[in-house]
Order: sequence, then C-alpha cells, then structure tokens
Amino acid sequence: MNATARAGGPIVVINPNSNAAVTAGLDAALEPFRLGGGPAIECLTLAEGPFGVESQLDTDSVVLPLVRLVESRPDAAAFVLACYSDPGLDACRSIARVPVYGIQESGVLTALTRGDRIGVVAIAAASVVRHRRTMRRMGVLERLAAERPLGLSVDESARAEGTFARLTEVARQLIADGAEAIVLGCAGMARHRAPLERAVGVPVIDPTQAAVAMALGGVLAARLQT
Amino acid sequence: MNATARAGGPIVVINPNSNAAVTAGLDAALEPFRLGGGPAIECLTLAEGPFGVESQLDTDSVVLPLVRLVESRPDAAAFVLACYSDPGLDACRSIARVPVYGIQESGVLTALTRGDRIGVVAIAAASVVRHRRTMRRMGVLERLAAERPLGLSVDESARAEGTFARLTEVARQLIADGAEAIVLGCAGMARHRAPLERAVGVPVIDPTQAAVAMALGGVLAARLQT
Amino acid sequence: MNATARAGGPIVVINPNSNAAVTAGLDAALEPFRLGGGPAIECLTLAEGPFGVESQLDTDSVVLPLVRLVESRPDAAAFVLACYSDPGLDACRSIARVPVYGIQESGVLTALTRGDRIGVVAIAAASVVRHRRTMRRMGVLERLAAERPLGLSVDESARAEGTFARLTEVARQLIADGAEAIVLGCAGMARHRAPLERAVGVPVIDPTQAAVAMALGGVLAARLQT
Amino acid sequence: MNATARAGGPIVVINPNSNAAVTAGLDAALEPFRLGGGPAIECLTLAEGPFGVESQLDTDSVVLPLVRLVESRPDAAAFVLACYSDPGLDACRSIARVPVYGIQESGVLTALTRGDRIGVVAIAAASVVRHRRTMRRMGVLERLAAERPLGLSVDESARAEGTFARLTEVARQLIADGAEAIVLGCAGMARHRAPLERAVGVPVIDPTQAAVAMALGGVLAARLQT
Amino acid sequence: MNATARAGGPIVVINPNSNAAVTAGLDAALEPFRLGGGPAIECLTLAEGPFGVESQLDTDSVVLPLVRLVESRPDAAAFVLACYSDPGLDACRSIARVPVYGIQESGVLTALTRGDRIGVVAIAAASVVRHRRTMRRMGVLERLAAERPLGLSVDESARAEGTFARLTEVARQLIADGAEAIVLGCAGMARHRAPLERAVGVPVIDPTQAAVAMALGGVLAARLQT
Amino acid sequence: MNATARAGGPIVVINPNSNAAVTAGLDAALEPFRLGGGPAIECLTLAEGPFGVESQLDTDSVVLPLVRLVESRPDAAAFVLACYSDPGLDACRSIARVPVYGIQESGVLTALTRGDRIGVVAIAAASVVRHRRTMRRMGVLERLAAERPLGLSVDESARAEGTFARLTEVARQLIADGAEAIVLGCAGMARHRAPLERAVGVPVIDPTQAAVAMALGGVLAARLQT
Repeated sequence: MNATARAGGPIVVINPNSNAAVTAGLDAALEPFRLGGGPAIECLTLAEGPFGVESQLDTDSVVLPLVRLVESRPDAAAFVLACYSDPGLDACRSIARVPVYGIQESGVLTALTRGDRIGVVAIAAASVVRHRRTMRRMGVLERLAAERPLGLSVDESARAEGTFARLTEVARQLIADGAEAIVLGCAGMARHRAPLERAVGVPVIDPTQAAVAMALGGVLAARLQT
Repeated sequence: MNATARAGGPIVVINPNSNAAVTAGLDAALEPFRLGGGPAIECLTLAEGPFGVESQLDTDSVVLPLVRLVESRPDAAAFVLACYSDPGLDACRSIARVPVYGIQESGVLTALTRGDRIGVVAIAAASVVRHRRTMRRMGVLERLAAERPLGLSVDESARAEGTFARLTEVARQLIADGAEAIVLGCAGMARHRAPLERAVGVPVIDPTQAAVAMALGGVLAARLQT
Repeated sequence: MNATARAGGPIVVINPNSNAAVTAGLDAALEPFRLGGGPAIECLTLAEGPFGVESQLDTDSVVLPLVRLVESRPDAAAFVLACYSDPGLDACRSIARVPVYGIQESGVLTALTRGDRIGVVAIAAASVVRHRRTMRRMGVLERLAAERPLGLSVDESARAEGTFARLTEVARQLIADGAEAIVLGCAGMARHRAPLERAVGVPVIDPTQAAVAMALGGVLAARLQT
Repeated sequence: MNATARAGGPIVVINPNSNAAVTAGLDAALEPFRLGGGPAIECLTLAEGPFGVESQLDTDSVVLPLVRLVESRPDAAAFVLACYSDPGLDACRSIARVPVYGIQESGVLTALTRGDRIGVVAIAAASVVRHRRTMRRMGVLERLAAERPLGLSVDESARAEGTFARLTEVARQLIADGAEAIVLGCAGMARHRAPLERAVGVPVIDPTQAAVAMALGGVLAARLQT
Repeated sequence: MNATARAGGPIVVINPNSNAAVTAGLDAALEPFRLGGGPAIECLTLAEGPFGVESQLDTDSVVLPLVRLVESRPDAAAFVLACYSDPGLDACRSIARVPVYGIQESGVLTALTRGDRIGVVAIAAASVVRHRRTMRRMGVLERLAAERPLGLSVDESARAEGTFARLTEVARQLIADGAEAIVLGCAGMARHRAPLERAVGVPVIDPTQAAVAMALGGVLAARLQT
Repeated sequence: MNATARAGGPIVVINPNSNAAVTAGLDAALEPFRLGGGPAIECLTLAEGPFGVESQLDTDSVVLPLVRLVESRPDAAAFVLACYSDPGLDACRSIARVPVYGIQESGVLTALTRGDRIGVVAIAAASVVRHRRTMRRMGVLERLAAERPLGLSVDESARAEGTFARLTEVARQLIADGAEAIVLGCAGMARHRAPLERAVGVPVIDPTQAAVAMALGGVLAARLQT
C-alpha cells in the first residue's frame, strides 16, 4: 500500500459493474472535476462485472477483473474504485504503483470533516452490515450515527424518479439519529447530492466525488517536486 | 457545522501566525492546486497571530481573530485553517456558511487512505500530547502508530536546511513503529514532502495540501447542481 | 498540565458568564464544602464573559479572559471553571501552577463511580454534540447511555420553576436509555440535585460540586507532606 | 448501584487485609481530610482478611467479609474499600444504601483530571494484568500510558525504606512511556505521594485519598437538600 | 491463567447453583458431546450454591466453593463454570492447572463467529448491566447489538412452558436491534436452542454447549503431542 | 451469515493452497478430533489455489474457487477455511447453508479464553498488517499484545526443522510484549503446538484445531433437536 502518487497521467475511475448507464452517471458527476491543466478523469466500465454489484459474491467476483484492469493502465496517476462496498481495494492497492481510492473509504473520511457523527444511506438492507464491518475495520465506527437502507436495487436507485422522495425521508431519519452529515452509500446517486443537501439542510457527500477529490489532491501534491 | 459548500468564490487559506514567510511557503506549496476554471486559492496571514503558534495559549489566542477574518470574507467558497493544532476550527465552523477545514483533521483523514496505521512528525515535543488528544476526539486513535517530534520551532523547521536529515530520521522511526504513511505535523514543511517520500519509500502527506484538496472537492462537487 | 496541588490558599471557582445570579447560585451550592480548617472557596464572576455561555463562540470568547483571571490569582490552591462546556480548560492548565478542574470533566468522571452507564441532561440541544465530542476526547464515550437536552437557555434553566418537571422527565428518559446515574450538564442547577435524586431514584451529580470535591481532594492530599 | 449519598454519618474506610500497620498508615494519610464540621473518617481493619491481599484468591476471599462489615455499619455515610484490586466493589455496592468507592476506580478517574495519559505503579507484576482488565472494564484503557510493577510485596512496600528509590525509578519509566500523572497502585504508599511528586515533577495520586475525596464530595453534596 | 490443556480426564461442568434440576438439564444438553474415545463430561451441582444465582451477591457467594470444588478434582481435563455471570472465573483460573471456561465468555465468543453483531437474551433485567460490564471487560462491546431480559427467574425460565413464546418475542426484538446471532444468557435454556433457531431464523447459541465445545477442543488438541 | 448448523454430514476443512503436504499436515493435526459417533472430518486441497497463499492477491485469487468448492458439498455439516488470512470467509458464508469458520477468527477468539492479551506468530512480515486489520474489523484489537513474524514462507515454515527454535524465540518476545496466550498464525504449524507450549509455558493455540472445535461444537449442538 506504499504507492506514491504520480504527477502525470489520468485519474482512472472504474465502475465495477457492467451497467454502462451507471458509468455515464459517474462521468457526468465528475465533469466539474475536469479543470484546465488538471489530470484527465476517465470513467471505465468493468466489462466482466455483474450488471449490479449487490451481493457479497458480486463484490468478490469483481476483484481479479479489477486487478487486471488496474494492471492494464500503467499510465494512470491514480485509481478510484466506484462501488460503495470497496471491492478489490486491498488487492488493487497491493499491485498498483499509484494510489487507489475506494469510494466508501473516501466518502466516509470526507464526511468526517463535515459533521461530528455521520449517517449513511444504503441502497439495500443487505449491505448495511457489510458497510458497518468496513467502518469497524477502518476504526471509525464511533463516528457513525446510523446507516439506513433505501430498499432499492442499484439499478432502480439510479433511475427511478421516486428515489428522491425516499432519499429525503431516510436522510431525515439519519439526522434524527444524530447525523450531522450524510454519505450517499452508492456510486449512482451523485445527481441527487445537491438537491438532497438543499432539502435536508446538512452536508451531503457523494462518495465518488469525494474519492476523486482525494485522488486529485494526491496528483496535484505530487506536482510539487522540490 | 452544517455549512454547505459553495460553487463560487476563492478557497481562503489562513496562516494563523504572523510569519509572512510561512504564508509564502503555503502559497508556493499550493501553486499546483490552482487550475484553469478552478477556484482561486488565496493565502492570508493572520496579522494578530503570534510569530509562531506553538503553545496552547498561542492556539487559543488566534481563535477570535480567525473568526473575524472568516467573517470578513463572505465571498469565500471554503476556508482552510493552516495550523496543525487546528485552532479555531470549532469556532469558525460555528459561524461560517461554507465549509472550514483544519489541516490536522484533513491531513490525518487523508493519510488513512494511504496506510493502515499512520505516523505523525511533530515539530515540538509539547504538541504531541495536544495532537493525540485531537485524534482521540476524532475517534481515530486506533489508526495511529506513533507521533514523534523533530524538536524544532516552527520557524526553525521552516528554514533550517538540517531539517531534512532530522525529518528522514524521525520518519524512519515512525515506519519502524508500524506507520505505513507519514503526516507532516506542521503547516510549513510542504517543500520536504516529495523528497521525504522518495527517501523513506512510504506516502508522505502535507496537511495543507490535503485540506485544500478536501476544500477543492467540496467546491467542485457544489458545481453539480442538478 | 503537570501542576501539582498546593496545600494553602483558596479554591477559586470561576463562573465564565457575567450573570451574577449564576455565581450566587454556585456560591450557595458550595456552602456545604466550606469546612473548618479546609480551604476557602471563592466564587468569581468573569466580568468579560457573555451573559450566558451558550454558543461555541461564547465558549471561545471567554478563554483569554479566564487565563488572565487565573494569572491574577497566584494565591489560589486550585481553580474550578464552572461552565459545562469546559471552556479554557486546556489554556488555563497550560499556565496555572496549581490544578485546574473543568466541571464537565469532573462531573462525568465522578458519575462513573456511581453507575455503569451515565446520562447527561443538557440545557440546549446545540450543546449535546459539543459535550459528546468532549467525552470522546476524554475516551469515556463507551460509558455514556445518552445525553438529552431540556431545551432551555442557561438563564431560564437557572430561574424557571417549571424547570424541575422538565428535568424529571428528561432524567427518566435517560434512565430508560440505560443510565444508572445522571449528570446535570450545566453550572446552574445544583439546587435541583437532591430533589431530582429523590424523584428519579438514581444518583444525580452536580458537576460544580463534583469539581470542587476533586479540588478539595487535591488540596487536602497536598497537606500531607511527609 | 443506585445508592444515594447521605449527609450524616462517618466515611468508613476498610482495609481488606488484616495488617493493622496498613490501616494505621491509611489513618495517617487521611488525617488532612478530617475537617471541622465534615464527616468523621474511620479506618477499619478487616479481621477476616489475609495479611496481604496479593493473589486473585486473596481478593475473592475478602468479598463476603467485606459485605458483612458494610452491612454492620448502617450509620455510615459512604464506604471506601482500600485495596487497589477493588475486591468486593460490585458486591458491596449491590447491598449498600450509600455510595461505595473502590480505590483503583477513584484513583484512576481522579488521575484523568491531572494528565492526558496516566501511569500506574503496581506493587507486584502479577497484579498488572488484573488492573488492566479492570481499566478495560471501566472503558478508560485508551488513557493508560503504562502500568509497571515495583516487584515488592504489599508488606515490603509499606515498610522498606528502599521503596522510594524504586518508586522514583518506575515513575520515571512511566513518564517516558507517556504518562502525565502517576497513580500509586496500592493502599499503603500515601506517605510517598508528596516526595515522589517533588522528585519526578508530575502529579502523583494516592488512590485512597482520591476515593475519600470522592466520598467527601458525595456527603457534602447531600447536605444541600433544597 | 497460563494453564495448559490436558489430554486425559473428564471435562467437569459445574452448576454453581444447588438446583439439581438445572444440573440435570445441563447433563441432557451435553449428551451429544459425549463421543466414543472423547473425554467424559461430568455435570456437578455446587452443594453450597444458592438455589438460583441471580443477584450480584449470589455470584460472589459461590466463588470460594467453586475454587474448592475445582481443587478437589485434580483429575479433570478442563472445567466449565455453568452460570452466565461467569462467577469465580478469575479465581478458578488462578488455581487450576487446566483450562477453565466461563459460559458467558465462551457463548459470546462463539456467537461472534456466527454473526457480525450479536444479541443476548438475559433472564432478569438486573443482570443486563452485569453482563454488559463483562463484555466491556472482554473488549468486545462493539459487537453487541443489544441485550434484553425475559423478566423471569432462573428457576421459572428452566421450567415454565410459556418461556418459549417470550424467548421468541425477545429474540425477534434483538434481531430488529441488529443482532445476527443470539446467545441464550443462562445455563438452563439449552432445550430451547434448536426450536428458537428454527423460529427466528438466525443462529442461536447455548453458552454451556459453546463452553464445552471450547473445552473439548482444548482437550483434543492436547492429544496431539508430537 | 444466518446459516444454522446441521447435525449430520462431515466437517469439511479446505486448504486454500494447492500444496498437498500442507493438507496432509492438517489431516494429521485433526486426527484427535475424529471421535466415535462424531462427524467425519475431511481435509481437501483447493486444486485452483496457489502453492502458498502469501500475498494479498493470493488470498483474493482463492475466493471464487472456495465458493465453488463449498457449493459442491451440500452434504457438509460445516466448513473450515484453513488459511490464516481467512480468504473467502464472507463469500462462503454468504452462500453456505451451514456455518463456515475461518481459522484466524476462530484461533483468535479461542485464545481470548486462555489469556487476557494474546500474541500472534505470523509467518511473513507482510501479513502482520493484514491480520491486524482483520482483528480491528473483529473489534478485538484491544486484546492484542503484539503480532510478530517468523520471517519464513508458508512452505518453509511447514517443513524446516529450524522453525521451532525461531518459533520459541518469537513466542518469548510476544510474552515479553504482554501476551498470555499465543496463536500460531498459519495453518501449517500444528505439530509445533504442544512442544512450543511446553517450551514457553503459556497456552498455544493452533487455529485450525480451534476452528474445527468450533465447528464440532456447532454440529453436536445441532444434534439436540428437542
């Protein structure tokens, strides 16, 4: 994990599922991060991925394909793995020569700068335990107010227009649980970030944007090579 | 603390001490973060600050002046308080309408993406206890391998050329303590980041760069107002 | 923070707000602690303080005045800072040659001898997050059952007669949350301690009394100079 | 454990071992706590106790005798169990109608007001694990810098004059470990408190004095029965 | 506590209360653990024990009798103390030359292999705090979803047929609290384990069976003496 | 993860590497666990596994093959994954209808019944960080005294005769670090367990034996279907 950031090359964002609509959503969400003189930001779809990464097995099935994709891009300045279960994070870090960011990890750590205790909106109930285990592994569980599920599939959450009303409801419950900032626990909800923030009045973090900001910070810092 | 990020305006970085050389160093360290189309990054010196913020009292003495400076800049998109003791962070957050980042908080959280346990290089022995207390308050102490002091003043550390040899020695001790990433525990050592990283072979985080990356991420995310 | 207790001189209790009625209340609450041969207990009002210390900024605004007041009393055997947010505790400790006690810190630690998990009654909802952060910083958060607000201002809580009914209601909720002892999270409620204890049947701790007991212990221990 | 403090009656301090010299030492150490108008402080020897409470079995053997002694004193305002292993603390609390204080618990909590991380001087190596388990049970282990043994028996530590040199040596090691305050992990070392504090320059806590101060605080608070 | 397991001799299970019906229930629950070539499993009743171990004092009263019973069986390969409050565990470990298992400790640790967060069904409300303190002492509190009481005496819970309906109700509440596995917090409920597991659909652990499995593992491992 | 144990069928132990000598060693180490009337214990080699599971990528590469092997054995009563990095534990649990045990998890939890703080002997330095992360994820890090590496490959450690001297040396360092029980952090060292225990005088746990004991406990408990 002792990769050091590189000053040149693109930030490569990988959508571990094979749903190209999700990749297109990521691409749109990251448009503001493409700045003059800054690194390119490429969003790739993992062809071998399942249509949605939802079960534990889905997360395990994408690890080796992710490793191969990372290995195929020696030109990258940094990688972002854009699935909230952070599949393959340890594996990709173990072989990459540049930093690899997981969106759960980056989203949670970024939210810790915006509120004392945070809330997470999961898509499905089944992933709440998995995410909690990751936060315990990170050693930050004491900062979690609660995580609550929407009760939707990744694909539904990315498309359904009724999603926003449900998001707002869950975010308000998290605020009642003590959350001062909300993390969207999925790669496909960036377009709801700003409206949700306006609706509930506390900071809302899109984890892919958070991870790309971290990656951008690593790349730009590496440009100062005194 | 429920400020929401703004899409427009500069990122205002405040050096809480009155040593303009430190501000100039910050300004140089942040040059790579000024990108075409991105927010301006202004580095200000707190005129009322002591020449170096070293003692507990120094940190307390700058809180209200920092608040006034923050209040005087309603145009800012985000603030970064560039002293590793994070003085005035709670106070400025309580009055600002945009996010405020402390460099200890941002530096530590960023380092957590680069190593399982981290090490911190403090300038003076006296600040080690203060920093540890802050990390306990953050709830991330379990991720600290060790913090070790250089045994220099802020001013010395920013100027003396012998600093680098001492930095390397302390960083190697931290790695032996179990650290997989190193945080420079001071605002004035950014120019040593890249050389130290090359010398010791693990990621080295400059906390001001880390905080500005966080701020940049908040600002850019806010530009996506679907 | 390595001040050692002195055997002679008064215990100086400082009310960081400028509301003299609060100081008078402290003075009355501490009357039983004035014993023959024991140290005098002086209660001072911080003239520069706001009328009530309620916001984060209020707590920050009293730090330097508190330091000056502490410095002006080299005769003191110990200091007690009588605001539940413990403003200026680090600062005063850094310059005092005798022990300085904060009432939140002392109140919480004392309550830990009276119940396995404790509950805290805050005055205002806004201070709950601040107090929790302090308890995390103390490393004792695992012992907190819950903290709940009365929803009153400091001044109201010190005067309104309806306060007691509300206190009883909140204390009972805390007991239902698992609290075995209750801390009054404010300097101005000592007169409710005994009645509340009788009403709810679990130990109730007044934090100023707890801090003065700690200070008294330090002073008396220092009289044994074998 | 929901005993409420009483305003009248003596504070009864029980030495759980049958070594009357230890009781006499406690009595002398507590002399400064006997104040005009304050509660009497009685020091009792547990006749059924072993000569020294050193092994795990020693601590278990005194529990029921302690309970009987506590039950025989319905006049007491509070009890202090003066053995650093806190034997019988849960049992006595479960039957007493007034507060019961253990000296480890009170000593550790009091030390937390005097330093960020604390050190404990144990008598024998065998008790270090037992004490650590108690601190984990208290939920305060994160505040322990280290505990180190003198390598003496309770009786030796109470009498031998060479003890002080060894105490000083161990206290200095604890300070090097990061301790900012020292707890004497035994009931029989109060006469070394002040000299040790002068010798090593950080606060030194005698746990029996700390527990009696807590008890005194409870009794005096109970005198304010508005 | 550094006893090493022995390959020969019986596993001695001690019921610390004098209710022979509870011992008979243990004996029946452990019948499947008696295998050809495996150690004998003897279930003993502690004659000196109270009819039910319910209060704190009950747990303390059995410690020395348990020690004597353990000492009287130098032929044992391992001991299991079959009361969920784990009375005498430290004492028996301090004198036994073979491993001693407490059923709370073994039950909780075994449950941690079957679910991320666990729930505990206590018999009486009064023991919930005691059990929580033990789990904090074990350092595993972060894995507890909740513990909830049935509100029955040990004797009632072992006999009453209405017990099962109440067990099911409480287990379902624990699952709603986030528990993925349930521990029966009493020695006398083994016959409900399998039906409850079928009823609620998550793993249910009988703590005595869990402790005997641990003991069996120690004994069998000791047979491999390369 | 809500699989319930089955009363019939074998315990299937899977060696995730393709080194048949390691499987043969497991088979020999588990011989004492095969008892009359108890479940059969089968030891399988994962044909698709690498010769040794040493790197992060090795652990990730065996996950899906392990899942397939688990799926191919619907007759199993329980599974044990016999690699100390617990690869595939979450994945196999998510699809198995019977309990799945990882040897790190079972070894660590079993050791917690044998000492207050434990030590782990790793094979290679690189796995120490990975194991620590798993223990943090388990929420039991506070019980770890230290983990230290032998500095050998899995294959070397399983064969080299010089291994025992190095094991003894490392175990003694762990005891000096505060460990009261030692876990062998590898599947291939069972034959050293008893000699090492005799050499260093504290309990030594072979993690595969510990996991099989847990599995045996689950199977036997399931035979009591009142």
